[in-house]
Amino acid sequence: MARFIKSNKEFIGISPDSIRFRGEKKTDSTLIKLTRYNENSLSENTIGEIEDLTDLYKPGFTSWLNIDGLHDMDLMRQLPVNLDIEPVIISEVLNTHARPKVIEYDNCLYIGLKMLHYLGDGITIKTENIVFVVKEGVLITFQERTGDVFDPVRERLKNAKKRIRRLGADYLAFTLIDIIIDNYTYLISRIGQDIETLDEKLLRSANDDILHQINKFKSELIYLHKSILPGKEMIYHLIKMDSEYINEDSLVHYRELQSNINHAVDSLNNYKEILSSQLNIYHTQVSSRLNDVMKFLTVFSVIFIPLTFIAGIYGTNFVHIPELHYKLGYPVMLVAMAIIAVGMLVYFKRKRWI
Amino acid sequence: MARFIKSNKEFIGISPDSIRFRGEKKTDSTLIKLTRYNENSLSENTIGEIEDLTDLYKPGFTSWLNIDGLHDMDLMRQLPVNLDIEPVIISEVLNTHARPKVIEYDNCLYIGLKMLHYLGDGITIKTENIVFVVKEGVLITFQERTGDVFDPVRERLKNAKKRIRRLGADYLAFTLIDIIIDNYTYLISRIGQDIETLDEKLLRSANDDILHQINKFKSELIYLHKSILPGKEMIYHLIKMDSEYINEDSLVHYRELQSNINHAVDSLNNYKEILSSQLNIYHTQVSSRLNDVMKFLTVFSVIFIPLTFIAGIYGTNFVHIPELHYKLGYPVMLVAMAIIAVGMLVYFKRKRWI
Amino acid sequence: MARFIKSNKEFIGISPDSIRFRGEKKTDSTLIKLTRYNENSLSENTIGEIEDLTDLYKPGFTSWLNIDGLHDMDLMRQLPVNLDIEPVIISEVLNTHARPKVIEYDNCLYIGLKMLHYLGDGITIKTENIVFVVKEGVLITFQERTGDVFDPVRERLKNAKKRIRRLGADYLAFTLIDIIIDNYTYLISRIGQDIETLDEKLLRSANDDILHQINKFKSELIYLHKSILPGKEMIYHLIKMDSEYINEDSLVHYRELQSNINHAVDSLNNYKEILSSQLNIYHTQVSSRLNDVMKFLTVFSVIFIPLTFIAGIYGTNFVHIPELHYKLGYPVMLVAMAIIAVGMLVYFKRKRWI
Amino acid sequence: MARFIKSNKEFIGISPDSIRFRGEKKTDSTLIKLTRYNENSLSENTIGEIEDLTDLYKPGFTSWLNIDGLHDMDLMRQLPVNLDIEPVIISEVLNTHARPKVIEYDNCLYIGLKMLHYLGDGITIKTENIVFVVKEGVLITFQERTGDVFDPVRERLKNAKKRIRRLGADYLAFTLIDIIIDNYTYLISRIGQDIETLDEKLLRSANDDILHQINKFKSELIYLHKSILPGKEMIYHLIKMDSEYINEDSLVHYRELQSNINHAVDSLNNYKEILSSQLNIYHTQVSSRLNDVMKFLTVFSVIFIPLTFIAGIYGTNFVHIPELHYKLGYPVMLVAMAIIAVGMLVYFKRKRWI
Amino acid sequence: MARFIKSNKEFIGISPDSIRFRGEKKTDSTLIKLTRYNENSLSENTIGEIEDLTDLYKPGFTSWLNIDGLHDMDLMRQLPVNLDIEPVIISEVLNTHARPKVIEYDNCLYIGLKMLHYLGDGITIKTENIVFVVKEGVLITFQERTGDVFDPVRERLKNAKKRIRRLGADYLAFTLIDIIIDNYTYLISRIGQDIETLDEKLLRSANDDILHQINKFKSELIYLHKSILPGKEMIYHLIKMDSEYINEDSLVHYRELQSNINHAVDSLNNYKEILSSQLNIYHTQVSSRLNDVMKFLTVFSVIFIPLTFIAGIYGTNFVHIPELHYKLGYPVMLVAMAIIAVGMLVYFKRKRWI
Repeated sequence: MARFIKSNKEFIGISPDSIRFRGEKKTDSTLIKLTRYNENSLSENTIGEIEDLTDLYKPGFTSWLNIDGLHDMDLMRQLPVNLDIEPVIISEVLNTHARPKVIEYDNCLYIGLKMLHYLGDGITIKTENIVFVVKEGVLITFQERTGDVFDPVRERLKNAKKRIRRLGADYLAFTLIDIIIDNYTYLISRIGQDIETLDEKLLRSANDDILHQINKFKSELIYLHKSILPGKEMIYHLIKMDSEYINEDSLVHYRELQSNINHAVDSLNNYKEILSSQLNIYHTQVSSRLNDVMKFLTVFSVIFIPLTFIAGIYGTNFVHIPELHYKLGYPVMLVAMAIIAVGMLVYFKRKRWI
Repeated sequence: MARFIKSNKEFIGISPDSIRFRGEKKTDSTLIKLTRYNENSLSENTIGEIEDLTDLYKPGFTSWLNIDGLHDMDLMRQLPVNLDIEPVIISEVLNTHARPKVIEYDNCLYIGLKMLHYLGDGITIKTENIVFVVKEGVLITFQERTGDVFDPVRERLKNAKKRIRRLGADYLAFTLIDIIIDNYTYLISRIGQDIETLDEKLLRSANDDILHQINKFKSELIYLHKSILPGKEMIYHLIKMDSEYINEDSLVHYRELQSNINHAVDSLNNYKEILSSQLNIYHTQVSSRLNDVMKFLTVFSVIFIPLTFIAGIYGTNFVHIPELHYKLGYPVMLVAMAIIAVGMLVYFKRKRWI
Repeated sequence: MARFIKSNKEFIGISPDSIRFRGEKKTDSTLIKLTRYNENSLSENTIGEIEDLTDLYKPGFTSWLNIDGLHDMDLMRQLPVNLDIEPVIISEVLNTHARPKVIEYDNCLYIGLKMLHYLGDGITIKTENIVFVVKEGVLITFQERTGDVFDPVRERLKNAKKRIRRLGADYLAFTLIDIIIDNYTYLISRIGQDIETLDEKLLRSANDDILHQINKFKSELIYLHKSILPGKEMIYHLIKMDSEYINEDSLVHYRELQSNINHAVDSLNNYKEILSSQLNIYHTQVSSRLNDVMKFLTVFSVIFIPLTFIAGIYGTNFVHIPELHYKLGYPVMLVAMAIIAVGMLVYFKRKRWI
Repeated sequence: MARFIKSNKEFIGISPDSIRFRGEKKTDSTLIKLTRYNENSLSENTIGEIEDLTDLYKPGFTSWLNIDGLHDMDLMRQLPVNLDIEPVIISEVLNTHARPKVIEYDNCLYIGLKMLHYLGDGITIKTENIVFVVKEGVLITFQERTGDVFDPVRERLKNAKKRIRRLGADYLAFTLIDIIIDNYTYLISRIGQDIETLDEKLLRSANDDILHQINKFKSELIYLHKSILPGKEMIYHLIKMDSEYINEDSLVHYRELQSNINHAVDSLNNYKEILSSQLNIYHTQVSSRLNDVMKFLTVFSVIFIPLTFIAGIYGTNFVHIPELHYKLGYPVMLVAMAIIAVGMLVYFKRKRWI
Repeated sequence: MARFIKSNKEFIGISPDSIRFRGEKKTDSTLIKLTRYNENSLSENTIGEIEDLTDLYKPGFTSWLNIDGLHDMDLMRQLPVNLDIEPVIISEVLNTHARPKVIEYDNCLYIGLKMLHYLGDGITIKTENIVFVVKEGVLITFQERTGDVFDPVRERLKNAKKRIRRLGADYLAFTLIDIIIDNYTYLISRIGQDIETLDEKLLRSANDDILHQINKFKSELIYLHKSILPGKEMIYHLIKMDSEYINEDSLVHYRELQSNINHAVDSLNNYKEILSSQLNIYHTQVSSRLNDVMKFLTVFSVIFIPLTFIAGIYGTNFVHIPELHYKLGYPVMLVAMAIIAVGMLVYFKRKRWI
């Protein structure tokens, strides 16, 4: 399937609020966790059945519902009712190939973003769609697979003294988005480091392997760019839209996010420039080495050409070639040849051809 | 005829409301279908004569008039009167080479868009102009040829429980435009998949065939870009213009369209970048293979040059060449030649020239 | 003289309202035509002397004064008084190298635009400056040469039933500008068609002739771009400035112009991309053909090298070369040579070098 | 010193209002001229001592003080007091490497711009900083060297009937800036003409000389771009800022300036494109000529290879080579060689290799 | 570690107000200096313990607290309390890899900027993060290492007559930022000078050394661009945000900063263009020199080919070769060879191949 844009003919023309999973199934089980906290208490529960979930909103508390795994259609169809959100939002959640975006609905704020996962083989990146739904006192997060990306925030939540315990769902959403964007930075810095290492390798030897690496990095950067750039736009709109679900005080943090994602995008572009500069160096290196070889070989053969010609002349069968009968004819010819060869070498050296 | 811009000298200077067909005739028959529905009932009729068409607007119902085939000028000239729209709109409909755009007229909203058709031969795309005219309770659509693009929506309409039956002409227009834009995404993802497949092919063998494919894809992407980009602008204006014919509630769906078309355009640009990167790899592969061949051949001939020279020396007819009379002269020469040849091979190997 | 920007040292520092002709004289005679019409009547007169021209504005009528030829300075100096416009406008008219622009003066609206003429030799374009001055009930047009570009509008005016007879000077200006912009589209489509034809030619044979055509097209596109792009800006400003000389009702037509000129500029950029893609193909074709030739020739000579070497060995004059005395020595050598040659051919074929 | 940006370590950290000359001294003497005019009278005086300068503003008159030469620090330090302007303005004037800009101060408007001088050697451009300070009824201009750039305006001022005598300091500033921008246009058109001439030269012969010219033009265009572009921004801000020192009536003229400078920048970009297109043609020409030479030479040597091989065979010393004893052996060999040579020539010709 | 973007996995997910040092330790000791001044007095103290610091704000004075070295976490944790600023600001200060930005907090204005240090080895640049916190009557600056960058301002402060003594903390901040930006200009002008020097070197000889320099400069320019560009944005926002901590009167100076940084960025882009133009020249030079060598060598060997062929013919052992028995056969052959060689030389010369 195409990596940059995914589309399935069968989903063309379906209603925007029809609840159908439009991604690849990335996990087998669905995990629902409800975390509820305020300054004084914190409770964390795993919800077995969606029916157990009543009254998500509890005054004086911030409730965070995290849903890992999106393939259980029965569950998904029940969510709009139980969570009091519009079906179109769940439909949106299920379209995991959607572009990062922010939409303000009547009773909630929808934020979609791509989480990037760095596979172990060095330079392959996979994306995962993560959705945040911010409601009054409630944050619902949807992940395609069960993972531990949000664990640092769970840790912070456990500490009652942390500011995060005092602040609401919008601040919680910020800390989670912050993790995702910090992850972008981390990924770019890792690839960036590898790219910068290429510089020295290139000067030592420009082989096919390096070329393949450059091309691989290039296509990963294009892929990263495609995943991160809409996120930048999204954050920009989020700040500009002045949503009622984002507190005035939290906005300063969201602006921080904007600065971070801008930094990430800038660096990405820098690395793109550096890669194309490296590609240039690679080609220069290769062609300069080829030139050296060809020049050497050409000079080598050129030196023998007049010598062979002279041998050819004295190989003719003319009856009257006086030189052939001289006693020193043969050694003189050899010496003359040596002089010609040396003379040409000196000439080429002086012309800096060898 | 030029594919990217079409113009005909004879149409220069004609009045903007003169009703003349300015495209290519793409169908023989004209098909007019009227679909009328509300939450409770749905009727679908084929209109034989335009005279049969009176009172398009029926209170409490949404009326969708779909006209396939635009070459019947008698019909077209009657339309403005029967449908109560300005002649300039019909003139616009007939100019099938027009750029996608949205215009708000006094009593309707005009939306023009390109439908893309993917021909069976792999990578050739044809465009068709589709026009939506949104009026109070009425949607009129014009297509250049009879087709089944809108069938999924007809299916949804048949289901009385679907939301689409409750919502008006603006929502109907949205679902139809949504199909067109989903089609963009689908097309790009299909071409994109083919482009991504080239990556591996390139590494295996870089032949002329791949080059022609890259160039073909490239020109198709330029053509797609040209067809889709004005659509992106159009959607943007549609949202910004705050038309009275688009319901506040429908706007959120139109914003969804914007996100989708942005995604499509982004991917298109990504694929353009990938193609030019592939072109680069192609050239590198070709020139690197040529270099290998040339280097081998040069090295090969360079090895024989000194050998032939030695043979030439002993082929001279000097009377006094002592070596010629030695008993082992000939085999010693052969051995010497072998040593020289091997020595050069070793030297070249060490220098990594072969 | 420079084609892209023209400047004359002697005009530096002259007053903006000094009436001096700053272009090239393109016609010998000056032709002044006054067309006056309303729904009921139409009169068309050629004005011999500017003195004959009094009361350009006639209530209830639209008066269109068309002046072809700008070199008659006496006439030009009289115009501001007779037509009641500021001298700076005439000065502007006379600067035929000016950039397309729109300026609102106290009692009129100035619109300058480039008319493009396509010379018969295939791909050379000449520009002509055309100025529209819109006043209350009056349109004055200035052309550098006498021509028939506006004839379609004159034809339409003759038909009393046409809408143009009912609408004012701003609509007349629109129809004339529309002709100019349709002409852009037509020109681009003609060049575009020629460019698209190159595609096939390129695949058949990439010769110098095609290269010169590509370069010629490229420079013509740059020239077209330079002439059309400021027109796009101009139309944009015209719509945005909300001038009192442009009727609300006419604005929708001007927006149409904007869409058309955008389409033209888009296509222009597409063709630029296509040309640079073709240039790429051209270079690939040329270098691939050269590679084929060089490879063939190199392989050819490489095959003879060992054969000539063998002949050289048996050409040496050693006294003791046993093979020379064998009866079958000579034919065996020939056969051995043939085997070596065929062996090498097979090897090269297998390596896909030939 | 760097040509594109000049900086001196010793000026880092000095106060923005410290009066120190930060440019190169370009003239030895300082020349101060005061021109005072209204519709009825005009006086022109050279000011010997700055002390003579009292009451620059004289009601009912426009006073134009022109100062050529900026290196006299005593004078400069006195200026703020005598001219009633802030010291920071003089400090700005003395920083001749500053970027063109417009700043509105409390009691005056500061406009900085680059004057371009075209040196006689064909394509070298020098810049000079020119500052305009517009006050109520007063215009002060600062030039780095004494020159005659503003002479056309002095001429126009002498004619009492000219509009310039009736209008104020802002109109005077406009006419002077107009000269500077017309000068840009003139310069670009001169370089442009030279660039367009290269087109034909290139087709005739692509030698090193042309390459150096292309590169020289390119770097001059970059330099021009750098000098002119900030001027474009500056004019744009000047118009947008709605300064009290620029009369409403003069604004139309400033808009004219904007159109002119836009035209200049457009053409500059066009010429940049043309140059890079020419560079392309140059490389194509050079490589195509090299290809021709190499192909000819290769074909030439390839034809001799089989002939020399045949001679080699009959040069072998086998005792039993029957052909050697035929009477016609030698001429038959020569004829066979000729046939082979002609055959190869025909083959290569047919393959279009020669 | 990656140079363009730095990220550490362990900092992902930490709270924005957690006080942890996220940079490299660049100094061992921490130095805190308090400078307090008004028009009449100036005191400068080194603060040993942060506890000594009470009442930073003193009415009627401007207090400037400069902190060099950020690694002392105990100190940093105490700062928010002692300086009455939010912990998030200190957290921001400690993230030395942050992007330049300006944020308005409730009781202060945060300005972050990169100071550039030019290492002695010619072209390596290091960045240092510098933070300005502007409060009512107070300026706090944070530097990563102890340095003398701000010394010129300290000097100016000592002079009681200087304007800086009369103006507040916002003006002090301006003068310090001014130094940083002047430093940008200085750095670019130094690198720029080196780049411009390359022009001549390139024409004299295009060796590998120059290529490495071009590539080094290029990557330094990318790095500079990355460090300076966000600063440009930052200044732009600073001016637009209309902060209460920046006095109206100081704004004109900040606009000056904007002009300076724009100038720096423009020049940077110019030098990038020049470098890529130089890279072009380099490649042209190298390939043109290679072409010369190859052409010479090919022509040289081509001249010998027919001569060797002739010698080959007379080396054949045919019994009946009449020429071999002519008395003048040998010298005639030599003369014929000379004529052929000269003839070819003349031919090649005429064709301009040598």
